[in-house]
Amino acid sequence: MEDIVKVAVLASVAHSVPPRSYGPWEQVASTLTEGLVVRGHDVTLFATADSTTSARLHAEAPAGYEEDHTVDAKVYEALHIASAFERADEFDIISNQFDFLPLAFSRLVNTPVVTTIHGFSSERILPVFRAYNDIGHYVSISQSDRHPDLTYSATIHHGIDVDQFTFGAGDGGYLLFLGRIHPDKGTHEAIEVARLAGLPLIIAGVVQDDEYFQREIAPHVDGHRVDYIGPVGPSDRDRLLGGAVALLHLIDFEEPFGLSVVESLAAGTPVIARSRGSMPEIIRDGVTGFLVHSAPDAVAAVKAVHAIDRQDCRADVVARFTADRMVDAYEVLFQGIIDQRL
Amino acid sequence: MEDIVKVAVLASVAHSVPPRSYGPWEQVASTLTEGLVVRGHDVTLFATADSTTSARLHAEAPAGYEEDHTVDAKVYEALHIASAFERADEFDIISNQFDFLPLAFSRLVNTPVVTTIHGFSSERILPVFRAYNDIGHYVSISQSDRHPDLTYSATIHHGIDVDQFTFGAGDGGYLLFLGRIHPDKGTHEAIEVARLAGLPLIIAGVVQDDEYFQREIAPHVDGHRVDYIGPVGPSDRDRLLGGAVALLHLIDFEEPFGLSVVESLAAGTPVIARSRGSMPEIIRDGVTGFLVHSAPDAVAAVKAVHAIDRQDCRADVVARFTADRMVDAYEVLFQGIIDQRL
Repeated sequence: MEDIVKVAVLASVAHSVPPRSYGPWEQVASTLTEGLVVRGHDVTLFATADSTTSARLHAEAPAGYEEDHTVDAKVYEALHIASAFERADEFDIISNQFDFLPLAFSRLVNTPVVTTIHGFSSERILPVFRAYNDIGHYVSISQSDRHPDLTYSATIHHGIDVDQFTFGAGDGGYLLFLGRIHPDKGTHEAIEVARLAGLPLIIAGVVQDDEYFQREIAPHVDGHRVDYIGPVGPSDRDRLLGGAVALLHLIDFEEPFGLSVVESLAAGTPVIARSRGSMPEIIRDGVTGFLVHSAPDAVAAVKAVHAIDRQDCRADVVARFTADRMVDAYEVLFQGIIDQRL
Repeated sequence: MEDIVKVAVLASVAHSVPPRSYGPWEQVASTLTEGLVVRGHDVTLFATADSTTSARLHAEAPAGYEEDHTVDAKVYEALHIASAFERADEFDIISNQFDFLPLAFSRLVNTPVVTTIHGFSSERILPVFRAYNDIGHYVSISQSDRHPDLTYSATIHHGIDVDQFTFGAGDGGYLLFLGRIHPDKGTHEAIEVARLAGLPLIIAGVVQDDEYFQREIAPHVDGHRVDYIGPVGPSDRDRLLGGAVALLHLIDFEEPFGLSVVESLAAGTPVIARSRGSMPEIIRDGVTGFLVHSAPDAVAAVKAVHAIDRQDCRADVVARFTADRMVDAYEVLFQGIIDQRL
């Protein structure tokens, strides 16, 4: 693409961009923003004031509402979204990485809004996506996450900066759980599978469901067979992934995408995942990990995981899940929408 | 005013318009809408689908989110507000009775938006009101509720349809608490004052703070000295007010307005209120009730309340708090804003 595009990237304000630890939406917003800047586009990132970017930063919220509880979510979501739409005429395109609320503003401006649907938190949010289906330019983040009622402009898998992940030997002698501690993510099942497979488990991530953590996870944490180390930043994550025998990703929901799955593969660590949601799109069964249907399946997969070539895992990320590939896809989509309007 | 004004009234979607029991914002939206219709204006009410109006009704939410828990508040607030702003060009003025979220849309349309501030739920919402101070056309609902950081176009006290309240003899031999069951409203203090004054107390209203209700209220409810009858609709409210010796309104916050206080006065029932917030603007001390500073003050006021002429209470509502007076004030304000733009 030769034209310089004036892009507004509207991030979530739950966390900073990029996030310090948890925050996949903010991570994708960051990856997209930085990639567009490198390609020479004129990019304004709408995000929290403590965000870091090589684009122009426009901030209304002083910090993420999940990180600073003096920040009122509803108040700063309103100011944040409004500030982008009030400047809409300055942009050729608005990339909405926020969720559904910006759609409510989208008919009031002339600038096309491309909405990346990072998943449906509930069926209850569908009425908004249906109401803006005609102008939403929806991007699904996996084929599996497409809703039959909606029209999509593209499916764009998330990409990562592979250079930020070191290829590891997987010689730490442990299995890894990485993600939100929540029943959806199958943290309790990872504990059970690790026990049956006879390997220690390290659990890293934010506790999103405290009652679940106290009831199902904490009683098993002995710092030896099962260790919980809290949320981890990029460097710890890199080290943890590189040493793991495998990542256990025994989800109990239709996960729209799994950023931690791709990150694990980039470190050379195969992934044992329940075959739901986007997992069959991300993992090559028997090549970069195993798609399983039950806990016994997962235990068998752990025992077979030595047969996976860790180089194949990383190679597949390089082939299919790089930031470059993701930014390319958004660039083509943005340019196509702009061209259609000329 | 001679010109027909095309008005959009944007109500809250917590309850229907008018509300079945609790819902002062929705009550005011209804009173304003119906009054403008009677005056011949072209009025569109944006409210829940189960609302009742002689204006045109535009509904996105099937029902109020406080009344039907299948209605997602954030989803339907977004669709509701957006639908009004997407039709902005059809209106001369938008009367925002919703709170701060519509302000975020207000710079994106040419139609002036007049925002009635029904109170500040928290200091945390001030950043939005500050951000739209230049175009907000803010209406305070009492002088006491004005915030020093904001510019106001008018103070307009709420008004009621006096005909909907029957003048009562106050011969029921009981004191009345009417409103949300919440520490702010002083329900527990009403119980104490009634006990010390030697009169039964009837408590009517929605429980907004269940923990408070269980701890401070329920143990005193014996159906005899203290009775709790739940939320009440218009006809029960009318009957309850008419029979009460006095309304106990021992608030513990700066209440921006007290619709139930005016309703009580319309029934001829004097009000004993703590002298905070808007109370000194509504109650004429010693004429339509008593402004008190403590529980002993309130007990003394109950003993002195026979000296209040119940006709004076109703007469003051007829003079100062009618729906006609309120609608007149909004009409003058709307016309003034429209004329300024011509």
